[in-house]
Amino acid sequence: MRRTVKIVLIWLLLILNGSSLNAAETDPLSSWNEGASKKSIVDFVTKATGEGDPDFVKPEDRIATFDHDGTLWAEQPMYFQIMFAMDRVRAMAPKHPDWKNKQPFKAVLERDTKALAALGETGFLKIIALTHTGITTDQFSKFVADWIATARHPRFNRPYTELVYQPMLELLRYLRANGFKTFIVSGGGVEFMRVFTERVYGIPPEQVVGSSGVVKYQLQAGQKPVLIKEGKIEFVNDGPGKPVGINRFIGRRPVFAYGNSDGDQQMLEWTAAGSGASFMGLVHHTDAEREWAYDRKSSVGRLNKAWDEAVKRGWTVTNMKTEWKKVFAFEK
Amino acid sequence: MRRTVKIVLIWLLLILNGSSLNAAETDPLSSWNEGASKKSIVDFVTKATGEGDPDFVKPEDRIATFDHDGTLWAEQPMYFQIMFAMDRVRAMAPKHPDWKNKQPFKAVLERDTKALAALGETGFLKIIALTHTGITTDQFSKFVADWIATARHPRFNRPYTELVYQPMLELLRYLRANGFKTFIVSGGGVEFMRVFTERVYGIPPEQVVGSSGVVKYQLQAGQKPVLIKEGKIEFVNDGPGKPVGINRFIGRRPVFAYGNSDGDQQMLEWTAAGSGASFMGLVHHTDAEREWAYDRKSSVGRLNKAWDEAVKRGWTVTNMKTEWKKVFAFEK
Repeated sequence: MRRTVKIVLIWLLLILNGSSLNAAETDPLSSWNEGASKKSIVDFVTKATGEGDPDFVKPEDRIATFDHDGTLWAEQPMYFQIMFAMDRVRAMAPKHPDWKNKQPFKAVLERDTKALAALGETGFLKIIALTHTGITTDQFSKFVADWIATARHPRFNRPYTELVYQPMLELLRYLRANGFKTFIVSGGGVEFMRVFTERVYGIPPEQVVGSSGVVKYQLQAGQKPVLIKEGKIEFVNDGPGKPVGINRFIGRRPVFAYGNSDGDQQMLEWTAAGSGASFMGLVHHTDAEREWAYDRKSSVGRLNKAWDEAVKRGWTVTNMKTEWKKVFAFEK
Repeated sequence: MRRTVKIVLIWLLLILNGSSLNAAETDPLSSWNEGASKKSIVDFVTKATGEGDPDFVKPEDRIATFDHDGTLWAEQPMYFQIMFAMDRVRAMAPKHPDWKNKQPFKAVLERDTKALAALGETGFLKIIALTHTGITTDQFSKFVADWIATARHPRFNRPYTELVYQPMLELLRYLRANGFKTFIVSGGGVEFMRVFTERVYGIPPEQVVGSSGVVKYQLQAGQKPVLIKEGKIEFVNDGPGKPVGINRFIGRRPVFAYGNSDGDQQMLEWTAAGSGASFMGLVHHTDAEREWAYDRKSSVGRLNKAWDEAVKRGWTVTNMKTEWKKVFAFEK
């Protein structure tokens, strides 16, 4: 009997020892090179979760917010939601023969890159309005789900959801494993993102904050009630709208925020203005080979004022080229 | 050695046996009498969580929404948020000597019940606007926190947060223990409720949906940024606004919804219109002794059309007097 007990004990010790060795070997941020960003992330999380540490953050205050386009997934050659809207225009075109000679639809149907570039914001808003309204919320979700399952990114010929950044997926998991609640706070349409955020990022619909249009409840006799998406913008969750959206949807101030453009500056300012420790980060797109390189002069995801502010205030600026071992999971 | 092992084993069995006896004895809904409401709740939850059951609800779809005033806590003699606003008027009065002779403030300062009743919606909106705007979100939260900690209900002489319904606290816990995510969906102000919902109901701020005013981000040179509460109503989360609010904040359709008034009818309709099994319930205030009795003709929390609809469609209507063993935790 004694011998059996000893053997069992030794065996238990081996298992326990093995698993602790395993834990030490598995780096939760393995796609991040050892650099300034990784260090500042790990330092912050270590302090925030260290009981007795002056920078300890109570579990209920561990709110982390992430911009979406350009921070969690790519945003070139255009925001993916615009790519979706243009595909919708093409799908709807057979019922609208007049679009062949009418801008902005003509440019979309002919895939005329030059004309598309010239459309400007008004042209794109027209396309968004047309493809996002006059339908029920259920219909819209189905259009998005079908598109996300079948559409392919023009440069990489892969589903758009494969253009998510592997280091950021690891960061989201790392934060959650340390008791943080992760939120998306994006200028993109909230109903567009919610279709896939749970599956792709592990972020459920109610933890996604975004822009929205007016929606109206409609109940016709003998039918099931529906929510109709109307043609009026309700809320733009960008720039100074981000702290407003955070207040409205989350109701707590983040202690951790990551963005990539000037549209994220106010979210980072708001996070920095909290009473305790906080982390502010920006992704800098510097890798034209694996992804894209753009900053101060880009029309999509411009990083100019927020960059200056970050440098001035010592916020983390992540150089994608040097700090990310891997950008996309599909890279060899 | 063998004897020691045996003793330890017997001791373990006794503990395990004891705890399983305990579990059987502890009814999670012990403040509910055995009646139609309790039965329909338990039946629904049993089916929704029974794998292989045709009414099984996937864990990610277990969304439960509760109205607040009159469903989770009392709402008489007036909505508690109006009681808060009136106390704010009294606190602000020393700096506004002209209020003594100016309605609606005069009625509030003199606690003139008759004049107060005559104020109507316009008068109350004036009081709400004045006490809820022109300040930062942080200042407002502090006012609410101070009030909730010190103010007392006129009839029961207890903090307002003690006027929460014990059976509903048990129901919230019971649902969460069965994998449901619980949300508040109320016509009340979202920033008012969020101050105490986590402590009182175990519902964190981001799971509270409510009405809101416009809020503006402001950053003055050399100062910390603030969010200013402006005088414009942004969203009224009541009646047909409830499905809209649910869509906007939660992004999923509830499978379980409880309300108590006509303002909840559309939330229940929206819940009932889902593709799978669902539960719809209404609290009927029938107990003038322990709480209040009111329904079709009440100006606060009127239950008229929604009641007819509930009867017609077989939704659960909870008779507070006969179905609740205990209304408030402080009852003997």
